[in-house]
This record gives sequence, structure tokens and C-alpha cells, in this order.
Amino acid sequence: MEESKRKVDYSLYLCTDRRLMTSSSIEECVEHAIQGGVTIVQLREKDCSSREFYELALRVKRVTKQYQVPLIVNDRVDIALAADADGVHVGQKDLPCQEVRRLVGEKKIVGVSAANRTAALQAAADGADYIGVGAVFATGTKQDAVVIAPEELAAIRQAVSIPMVAIGGIQKQTLPLLKGTGIDGVAVISAIVAQPDVEQAARELKELWNTL
Amino acid sequence: MEESKRKVDYSLYLCTDRRLMTSSSIEECVEHAIQGGVTIVQLREKDCSSREFYELALRVKRVTKQYQVPLIVNDRVDIALAADADGVHVGQKDLPCQEVRRLVGEKKIVGVSAANRTAALQAAADGADYIGVGAVFATGTKQDAVVIAPEELAAIRQAVSIPMVAIGGIQKQTLPLLKGTGIDGVAVISAIVAQPDVEQAARELKELWNTL
Repeated sequence: MEESKRKVDYSLYLCTDRRLMTSSSIEECVEHAIQGGVTIVQLREKDCSSREFYELALRVKRVTKQYQVPLIVNDRVDIALAADADGVHVGQKDLPCQEVRRLVGEKKIVGVSAANRTAALQAAADGADYIGVGAVFATGTKQDAVVIAPEELAAIRQAVSIPMVAIGGIQKQTLPLLKGTGIDGVAVISAIVAQPDVEQAARELKELWNTL
Repeated sequence: MEESKRKVDYSLYLCTDRRLMTSSSIEECVEHAIQGGVTIVQLREKDCSSREFYELALRVKRVTKQYQVPLIVNDRVDIALAADADGVHVGQKDLPCQEVRRLVGEKKIVGVSAANRTAALQAAADGADYIGVGAVFATGTKQDAVVIAPEELAAIRQAVSIPMVAIGGIQKQTLPLLKGTGIDGVAVISAIVAQPDVEQAARELKELWNTL
């Protein structure tokens, strides 16, 4: 693995969502979240043109670069490449992981969503750097998300050795329930972006993470 | 310019649109259209997942490759690269032409939509291989499209030397009105895909083109 990728800290993984955001811009939201302890940022925006997404990625990249926090782009490999993001995250409805790896090369981080052991093994075999596993709890952000059983989470952890980030319904109240699962980080959207004080929200989650 | 790109025949340029299609699949539509005389195909699908778009591109590529007709992907540079399409077409709301060229290299065709002389000059300066100019007539497919004046079309033709394809509202009835404009081809959607006999529709347009 590339040296720079070895050092990635997945512990507090922020996914953006402009629709839920309390900040006046994504850049501001991301900056405050990083100041509170976010270690990696995924730009996840669905309803905008490619140009808008690209320009947003450039603006957010300026912030993440300043704080030396990796920026991951959701789904759009071309936007990740054009904005020179640090990586790309793909779900099962996006480009296949093998194709993504071929397009971005070895230096960029490739993340894959995996909701079961089979998908996790496939992602690892296809060259993913990490997997996003969920939903670990019921979530309002993605209402069609299926909550996976704790045994499935354990089975995934046992099956693959690449970093594993839990996602879905993680809030202050639910984060402590992930103790002992062996995950490398927690991914949140509303638990940070929708809070009145983004920095404080990130700080509290980080403290909870550190006690796991 | 790459030798393979010199030979591109832009004369009858088909853009797909599943919503308007009379055929049971895009592959079938594209095959019949090519049999009728279409010389280049653009896959233009907005409302589908990246995976679906990618798989569609792979299927259409099998057809276009068989007939040695170039396949262009609309907007999505990553899909064009993953499916090894022959090129990509970007509008003013997509990735900037310069970025697209950087991502796809010199071997692939890059097309840019340009509705005026300034945009056309910019596209040519940014390394576009051809421009799509329109709307030349009012069109039902893109209801917000602004119809450009014949003088603007002439000004664009005079300003740039790269191939220029007219688009927007081109049907059997309107195609002959483009005589003398110096365009290199006509791009159509509904005039082919929405017709009961796709092959015959393409053939009639091609014959009209040949008499220009």
C-alpha cells in the first residue's frame, strides 16, 4: 500500500449533505467539523450539475488540504480526478470497484459500501482501501437503508483486514453501542452537519470515539 | 490531431434518449439507426445510477464497435473512460473542457456544446475536437433551449475551424434549411429514436443531408 494511505485516520468520517446543513456553506461546515476532530471528509452531493459538483469539490479541497485531512468524493470518479481529491467512495449502484481502481491508480483512496460479508470480501479482492459498512442503526438520512445485524458486522470484521467504517444512524446516543466491534471509524452526516454547533458536535463524537 | 480522430464522420449524429425511444432497448435503437446511416452515437442518459449508465455504455459499445461508429458519452467522463467509449461530450454545466482533455488524453474525442461565438472560441482553445451548436430550431426535447440566430451560426462557423454539429429541432422538415451554413453534421434525438421505423428515419435524414 502507498505510504500516504497507510496513515489515513478513519476514526471520525464526515459525509456532507447540503440539504441537512446548518452552516451557510459546505466549506464552512467542513472547516468547523475538522476543527472539532473530523479526520476524513466525503463530499456527497446528488442533485447538482457536474460543474457545480466540481467547483464545490475544488472549494472543499482547499479546506481539507489546509488541515491535511483526506477528501473523498462520492460516486463521481471524474470529479475526484478533476478536483484532485484524495479518493473516491462508491456504492453498489456506482462504478465497480475494479474499474474505479483502474481509473484512479494506486495513489488514491478507494472506498466501497458493503452491507454484508460477501460484498466486503469482494471489495477487498477488488482493491478497496476501506469499506463503509451499514446501516448499523436506523437512519433518517437514507430511509431505504437496511439495518445490519450485529452478527453480520462481526462476520464482516472477521472476513476482511482492510479498514472498516460503520455508517448509518450514528449519533451521540448510539456511538457507544459500537464498542467491541473492531471498527476503524464512524461515518456521520446529520450528527455533525445538522447540529447547531458543528465543531462542538464533532468534538463530542470524537471524545466518545476515544472512549470506545 | 490523432489520425483516428481525423476520420470521424459527424454527418448524422445520434443522441439517445430512452424516454422518447420506440425501440425495446437502446442497443436495438442504435443498431437500427446505424444501419440507416447514423455515423456517430452519443449516449445521453440522465436519470440512472452510475452503474446502470456504465452497463448501458458497455452494451451500446458492443454495437458501435461492430459497425466501427464512434461512441460518445454525455457528461460523464468516468463512464466514458470505464466503458472505453471513443469520446465524451460536455455542456456548459459539465466539467470544463480543459479538465476533460486532461482526464481523457489526446486519443479520445472531446465535444463541447457552444451556443455562441465566445463559447465556440473557448472550446476550440481548450482543445475540443468538435462543437455542438444549437438550438438551431425550437425543440421539444429541451424546452429551455434558446434558438440561435442564423447570423450567430454563421459567426461561429467563421470563428472556429474544428468540426461543428448543429443540434436542436432538426427533423426531416427543418434539415434542408441548414443548407449553406457550413456545418459538418446534424445531431438528432427524436427525429430518429422516437420514429416508428428508426432505420428508415435515419436513412431519410441521411439522404436529405447528402443533398445539402
